[in-house]
Amino acid sequence: MRSIPEPIYQKLANLLEDMIRSQSLRPGDRVPSVRQFSRQQRVSVPTALNAFATLETRGLIEARPKSGFYVRARQADLVREPKGSEFPARVTDFADVDPLVSLLADHSNPKLVPLGAAQPNAALLPAEKLARILGVIARRHPELGIGYDMPPGSETLRRELARRSLEWGCSIRTDDFIVTNGGTEAISLALRATCKPGDTVAVESPTYYGLVGMLRELGLNALPVSTDSSHGMDPDVLQKAIRRTRISACALIPNFNNPTGSLMPDENKKRILELMAARKIPIIEDDIYGDLNHEGARPRCLKAFDRDGTVLLCSSFSKTLAPGYRVGYIAAGRWHRSVMSLKAHSSLACATLPSLAIAEFLRNGGYNRYLRSLRQAYRHQVVQMREAIVETFPKGIGLSRPKGSFILWCELPKKVNSMELFKRAQAAGISITPGTLFSPQGGHQNFIRINCGHSWNARIERSVGILGHLASQLAS
Amino acid sequence: MRSIPEPIYQKLANLLEDMIRSQSLRPGDRVPSVRQFSRQQRVSVPTALNAFATLETRGLIEARPKSGFYVRARQADLVREPKGSEFPARVTDFADVDPLVSLLADHSNPKLVPLGAAQPNAALLPAEKLARILGVIARRHPELGIGYDMPPGSETLRRELARRSLEWGCSIRTDDFIVTNGGTEAISLALRATCKPGDTVAVESPTYYGLVGMLRELGLNALPVSTDSSHGMDPDVLQKAIRRTRISACALIPNFNNPTGSLMPDENKKRILELMAARKIPIIEDDIYGDLNHEGARPRCLKAFDRDGTVLLCSSFSKTLAPGYRVGYIAAGRWHRSVMSLKAHSSLACATLPSLAIAEFLRNGGYNRYLRSLRQAYRHQVVQMREAIVETFPKGIGLSRPKGSFILWCELPKKVNSMELFKRAQAAGISITPGTLFSPQGGHQNFIRINCGHSWNARIERSVGILGHLASQLAS
Repeated sequence: MRSIPEPIYQKLANLLEDMIRSQSLRPGDRVPSVRQFSRQQRVSVPTALNAFATLETRGLIEARPKSGFYVRARQADLVREPKGSEFPARVTDFADVDPLVSLLADHSNPKLVPLGAAQPNAALLPAEKLARILGVIARRHPELGIGYDMPPGSETLRRELARRSLEWGCSIRTDDFIVTNGGTEAISLALRATCKPGDTVAVESPTYYGLVGMLRELGLNALPVSTDSSHGMDPDVLQKAIRRTRISACALIPNFNNPTGSLMPDENKKRILELMAARKIPIIEDDIYGDLNHEGARPRCLKAFDRDGTVLLCSSFSKTLAPGYRVGYIAAGRWHRSVMSLKAHSSLACATLPSLAIAEFLRNGGYNRYLRSLRQAYRHQVVQMREAIVETFPKGIGLSRPKGSFILWCELPKKVNSMELFKRAQAAGISITPGTLFSPQGGHQNFIRINCGHSWNARIERSVGILGHLASQLAS
Repeated sequence: MRSIPEPIYQKLANLLEDMIRSQSLRPGDRVPSVRQFSRQQRVSVPTALNAFATLETRGLIEARPKSGFYVRARQADLVREPKGSEFPARVTDFADVDPLVSLLADHSNPKLVPLGAAQPNAALLPAEKLARILGVIARRHPELGIGYDMPPGSETLRRELARRSLEWGCSIRTDDFIVTNGGTEAISLALRATCKPGDTVAVESPTYYGLVGMLRELGLNALPVSTDSSHGMDPDVLQKAIRRTRISACALIPNFNNPTGSLMPDENKKRILELMAARKIPIIEDDIYGDLNHEGARPRCLKAFDRDGTVLLCSSFSKTLAPGYRVGYIAAGRWHRSVMSLKAHSSLACATLPSLAIAEFLRNGGYNRYLRSLRQAYRHQVVQMREAIVETFPKGIGLSRPKGSFILWCELPKKVNSMELFKRAQAAGISITPGTLFSPQGGHQNFIRINCGHSWNARIERSVGILGHLASQLAS
């Protein structure tokens, strides 16, 4: 269960990528030959070749016949990141926020090109392997599958989660987990356990629209705290915000925020934890994208720094293995007993067989190996989508540069109303998610979120072109 | 999908049972000979024999060699039904009600003799058939199983539910159903859609302890309305109660109440519906035991009489097919849109494969045929449990005489504290459910609920003997 060390060729590839991104090597420049590079770095020729192949896969260099490797021209590298919104942190009135229901219908409409919902690429997920595991368990232990799996849920699964928690920088015990119906139930239970109607919750702005909807449905208020698309929420801004406003909880997505893709530095995680722990305010951490780093080490959870049960860690396998299995979990720290009781009174138990199938996959299915290929695929898809967007969208846009996950956050010219763009895209057979949904305070009108979960193909490429055209129309 | 007419031999058996229960034929009396009976009733000899065999299965008559059939001596027939509690309907303070968590642990402890949780008999459920169906769907359509099944949930399942609703006396459309994580989620969503914290809900007393817990967790008050173990809630008592207290909803289990087993007559269903519809107060109907009538026609739902969407019908397949599949549903009438949104924000979607497997079983699995054998088995188990209780429990107890489902409600002598009995039974390796849990107002201290979901065996028989002994100790 130790984390796998990064192979040498990948380190070398990262080194070259840094040079390209920092413009030490510019588009059109020739990179060293394989032999030169292997000599310079004191590695074997095959290792050097592997590093070049990796860079080629990442779309950073290209081979020219009989001439070696050259840095590819990439407009996407030159585009700026989206702006954080500039607004004072102020408790939100949800009256103007659209309900989610119409969008859900859009998200599950198979006729639309799926750039809306944050759905993983079904072709990449181990659907058949999971189905086989599920079938075997169902047939071998039929009585197990039909029986209630009462809270806290399958011990087999919770034991695997405890082992995996080492990868997140935590060491959570089997008994500290509660299995839930996906990540949504985990977050909903966490909010209900820590807040009562009328209370206020500090959230990132922008943040996951499902969280915004949950706050509204639970009669809670949001205190949106402005974040940037690179490092997420700023501890100083949070500190200032809670000086004026009493909050009951802080709900965050530190690892690869949805929609910005920001990754909070460990230093900031620690500071936010200290800030909250000192005031006995719980942190609800959504780590659903944490396993999907594009390279390097898997980022640590904020909970990794938690010593006294301040953090309620919520996550699921919906972005990595199987959304339809609905296997999520919560490690609720000091709120464990309340969450147990709320879970029992909200949905009693979870479906037994999906939990057991996921547990078996974690134990014997080669999850770490599988994750490596998944991460590479998403990284690749994100790079391609960024290229296509920059090529076809109006000038002056901002575009996130996520270090993990498979979604992009795009700032369009001020004149573009993303709800209008959403409607026109839908009419053109394309699903996107308008930015206002991610905004508790009703901002981000000229932002959209783009899903890169699907493998790149001509249909998606065409759709991005159409989106760019529609955005240009609205911008002019 | 028409309901199957009752066979003639069963009608004849019911006729004879009526005579026995009404004491027209007394224990030890000889019943007519098969030939006599066939002549009297103008039916064939095999039909008459079938009727006698049915009565024998029901434990009402016994064959004596070369002498014919005699009415069996049955103490259980002579025991009175439990008393309804006599208390004024008064809004409840939940401070004294025990949380459920400790009991849940008890309910899923496989070492205890399972007379506690209302669990169906796993041996009777079609575990293997369902597992086979699930395995086939998972392997044939792997991508389907891992995909999100967004609210309202599987259309295939909802179509089957719409067809089955004819059996309940309803004609609910496919689009009016929302699939939920079991019946618990359905009821929880119904309460959240119709009430806000601080509101009051009229409930039967006693009622399902899960409902009591949900009200507490949601910050709702209960207005307990006294019911009797035969006909459930009395419309007149309800009418009087709501004259003094403003309620936001009425949550009922009209068909085979848990724990009393009462069956509300259609006339009362209509009157309660009129009462509520006139005041625009929603009725949350829990029909989870509705399919488990012991004989005759499947009772109609209260929703069968609903014309304007007043009733939110909640149910699941946890008592009839597979608790661990967590397949429930709600037809929320006027609250459809609110429930959709709440569902999306509570647990997003349901597990895809279990929904599809249940749908396929309903479509091609012979559900009606299967239900007939299940009903007979439960009827039988209830009869045997009643006999055993009456034989071994202290004199003067009251015992429910349910016309469906598989649970018994037992009133013990006033001196017996059921929480104490629960603890002693647990120490003796037996799980039961103490009556106080079912009582929003904290009454029913001397009542227990007994699960008859499991096939009769020597271990259960012994346990009932031990329970009787423990109850006698506490009574003296």
